[in-house]
Amino acid sequence: MRHFISLDDWTETEIMSFLQLAEHYRESSFHIDQQLFAANLFFEPSTRTKMSFNVAQRKLGLDILDFNKEFSSTQKGESLYDTAKTFEAIGANLLIIRHQDDCWMDELRGNLSIPIINAGAGKKEHPTQCLLDLLTIYQEFHRFKGINIAIAGDISHSRVAKSNAYTLQKMGANVYLTAAEGCKDYALPFPYISMDEAVEMTDVLMLLRIQHERHQIAYDKTTSYLDKYGLTKQREKRMQSHAILLHPAPINRNVEIDTDLVECERSRIFKQMNNGVYARMATMSSVLKEWGIMDEKISEKHQTSFTYGGVS
Amino acid sequence: MRHFISLDDWTETEIMSFLQLAEHYRESSFHIDQQLFAANLFFEPSTRTKMSFNVAQRKLGLDILDFNKEFSSTQKGESLYDTAKTFEAIGANLLIIRHQDDCWMDELRGNLSIPIINAGAGKKEHPTQCLLDLLTIYQEFHRFKGINIAIAGDISHSRVAKSNAYTLQKMGANVYLTAAEGCKDYALPFPYISMDEAVEMTDVLMLLRIQHERHQIAYDKTTSYLDKYGLTKQREKRMQSHAILLHPAPINRNVEIDTDLVECERSRIFKQMNNGVYARMATMSSVLKEWGIMDEKISEKHQTSFTYGGVS
Amino acid sequence: MRHFISLDDWTETEIMSFLQLAEHYRESSFHIDQQLFAANLFFEPSTRTKMSFNVAQRKLGLDILDFNKEFSSTQKGESLYDTAKTFEAIGANLLIIRHQDDCWMDELRGNLSIPIINAGAGKKEHPTQCLLDLLTIYQEFHRFKGINIAIAGDISHSRVAKSNAYTLQKMGANVYLTAAEGCKDYALPFPYISMDEAVEMTDVLMLLRIQHERHQIAYDKTTSYLDKYGLTKQREKRMQSHAILLHPAPINRNVEIDTDLVECERSRIFKQMNNGVYARMATMSSVLKEWGIMDEKISEKHQTSFTYGGVS
Repeated sequence: MRHFISLDDWTETEIMSFLQLAEHYRESSFHIDQQLFAANLFFEPSTRTKMSFNVAQRKLGLDILDFNKEFSSTQKGESLYDTAKTFEAIGANLLIIRHQDDCWMDELRGNLSIPIINAGAGKKEHPTQCLLDLLTIYQEFHRFKGINIAIAGDISHSRVAKSNAYTLQKMGANVYLTAAEGCKDYALPFPYISMDEAVEMTDVLMLLRIQHERHQIAYDKTTSYLDKYGLTKQREKRMQSHAILLHPAPINRNVEIDTDLVECERSRIFKQMNNGVYARMATMSSVLKEWGIMDEKISEKHQTSFTYGGVS
Repeated sequence: MRHFISLDDWTETEIMSFLQLAEHYRESSFHIDQQLFAANLFFEPSTRTKMSFNVAQRKLGLDILDFNKEFSSTQKGESLYDTAKTFEAIGANLLIIRHQDDCWMDELRGNLSIPIINAGAGKKEHPTQCLLDLLTIYQEFHRFKGINIAIAGDISHSRVAKSNAYTLQKMGANVYLTAAEGCKDYALPFPYISMDEAVEMTDVLMLLRIQHERHQIAYDKTTSYLDKYGLTKQREKRMQSHAILLHPAPINRNVEIDTDLVECERSRIFKQMNNGVYARMATMSSVLKEWGIMDEKISEKHQTSFTYGGVS
Repeated sequence: MRHFISLDDWTETEIMSFLQLAEHYRESSFHIDQQLFAANLFFEPSTRTKMSFNVAQRKLGLDILDFNKEFSSTQKGESLYDTAKTFEAIGANLLIIRHQDDCWMDELRGNLSIPIINAGAGKKEHPTQCLLDLLTIYQEFHRFKGINIAIAGDISHSRVAKSNAYTLQKMGANVYLTAAEGCKDYALPFPYISMDEAVEMTDVLMLLRIQHERHQIAYDKTTSYLDKYGLTKQREKRMQSHAILLHPAPINRNVEIDTDLVECERSRIFKQMNNGVYARMATMSSVLKEWGIMDEKISEKHQTSFTYGGVS
């Protein structure tokens, strides 16, 4: 039985079945008959991810336990392990965890009788974000193989970048990176290209947020970051007509992207957020079924109209 | 299709129908069959209004998304616009917004596919508070025309004062203001009277909270604010026997009102809070129906026993 | 009609019926048909107790109003009395209150039409924690009479210690205390013994958390608190084979207990947390029925398989 910690733990076929299930949830409403509790343990600020999980949980009919770090016993020095065991003891059937440590899951693996979903691990992984990005790309191109994808921006601090780069490569896409010098991570086995190259060659341009709160990037204010490294209106015009634009948000308007492009025709930014709800429904119901917690009969209701397009 | 931003957008007849609907909700319990999400975006502290919306939402059968400013992406500099669009994207069917800017709604109007309810806008408007005040007054007098109302206290900082003064005048009431010099707002087209005049002539005395957190009022401690401008026991005795006392709360006991009067016979302060739940149910279901989001059949269940008394 | 403020207000027979009801709730799921609101007013940090109440409330089918002190009108100086009256006015059917004052309930008694449950009062009482401790002990020994219990640790700052000591004595147990000098409370009518005596003679060893946030205990770092006063592995080996270990958590690992003992065979620490949910369901439904708020027919469903073992 697997936690949903990293997409590395799931095969291409399984990843495709997550996408199918997500698409199914979009098209049909349903509720479980059981009373199950999902506990959201967010140790870092979040609007989008947490609220997205909340909606997904309610759409599945799960009850919600919302842990608020600011107002809890972690103020009294309680460890993540003890907090997680506490939620297990009081009846949580599923833990959704976001934490600033890259490896917060290590002390939990093998010590819990309930599944965990990773809602963000330090600078390392963010697999549900990755899944919603895959869903958005698949909706557009109906395949991953041969798709050119550039991930642009604050690579070094981005768990989104890492989760996406490895998983998209596994699914058959060609992955490129583009970043200002201070934002590069040379440990990653993907080629760096310039933003000017990226806009012309990619089918998918995935922008990242400059994480001001995580580091001090030395971009000078006269020649702006936007002009040097971001998506200006001029660069957007040079993109292929079918190319789409992604961003995990929150967006720094006029830093990584011109504010007028946030809702431009090729932007799928808000579509991604919408997809996130269904992607999270799919991951939660999948692990709950794998662990024997959610009744299997629910899956019988699935009659997907989303054709599997293959990945190799 | 209208947002519920200001009572200026609604006719006298429509305002009366809100009151009727609120009264209906008090008398009969009901639930929608749909799964709809109300998102509460409160950028300012609130107990009463937020909890009142929560109860109203659960009584209507709505699912709740509670945005906590302190623990969200607004810490990462996200704008209200992007936050609102995010909630729309993840499936909110209704936004309840409180924000410190008077004009926060300007950037949202016309850009959302879902209705907004104003739960407090800077120092300008607080229309659901106004509606619950109207409901409380109407329960007492069964009319607005000719009713003498004095709004007393921190006029300059009060969105309650402004929403109420204009709306009550529109409904036919005679509106007076009373305030210490530093608390007056001379831009408002309503006559100022003294507190001593107010207690004797009004049918409705509406006290406001001195908003210590918004300004530094220069009232000297030896002759107290209460004695000079507030409702003392002596002043309360001079009120007409049928006159009622309102306050939006939270109350500064012994500042704007003697603590012993908070629950006196003519006080409707806790009654107002109770009315707030039903007033908010009425505004939420009304806009959800106007926007075609909530099924119209719900309104067929309404069999009000609250007689419309006319306003002119 | 009683609030659930202190177990002093309930007879031994009534306390046993709480335990029976709790055991019933563990074994059978059920929901009320009514829409009732429980409001959780926590003025002190809490994970366990608050989340435990949340689960218990949802298992009973109650709607939840979660008051967040950090983001409420208490920032505007509102008193507990006015906050409680506000929740009553907006429709709460039950208040769960945790507050730093020992006597916060005094101003509320007699002034509310709805019951209160004490979820922690200053350094004085924590009756639902006591009830879950009783439940855990009773599950093990099927009696209280003659059971030797030592409560060990930060006695002076612990509301858990006080609630448990008096109630366990009332139920027939022999209660001892053990504490470092700065942690003793000589006003309590229970004998102090050393930790070394405690581990050998007790059937139940109840450890407490050192409340670093409440006081500055002068334990020197070279000879650790654990070695002098806590439960080391050596001391654990000297406990009787049937003896069990309790701790209300959060735990200071390697302060009051060796980290390896937290989940040792005789530890009931996570079992206690699990019991807390059912104990709280029992207290909530009991007071709601005593106050005529929850329909009595619910109790007809109870067919307990938990045999009352008597207490004297």
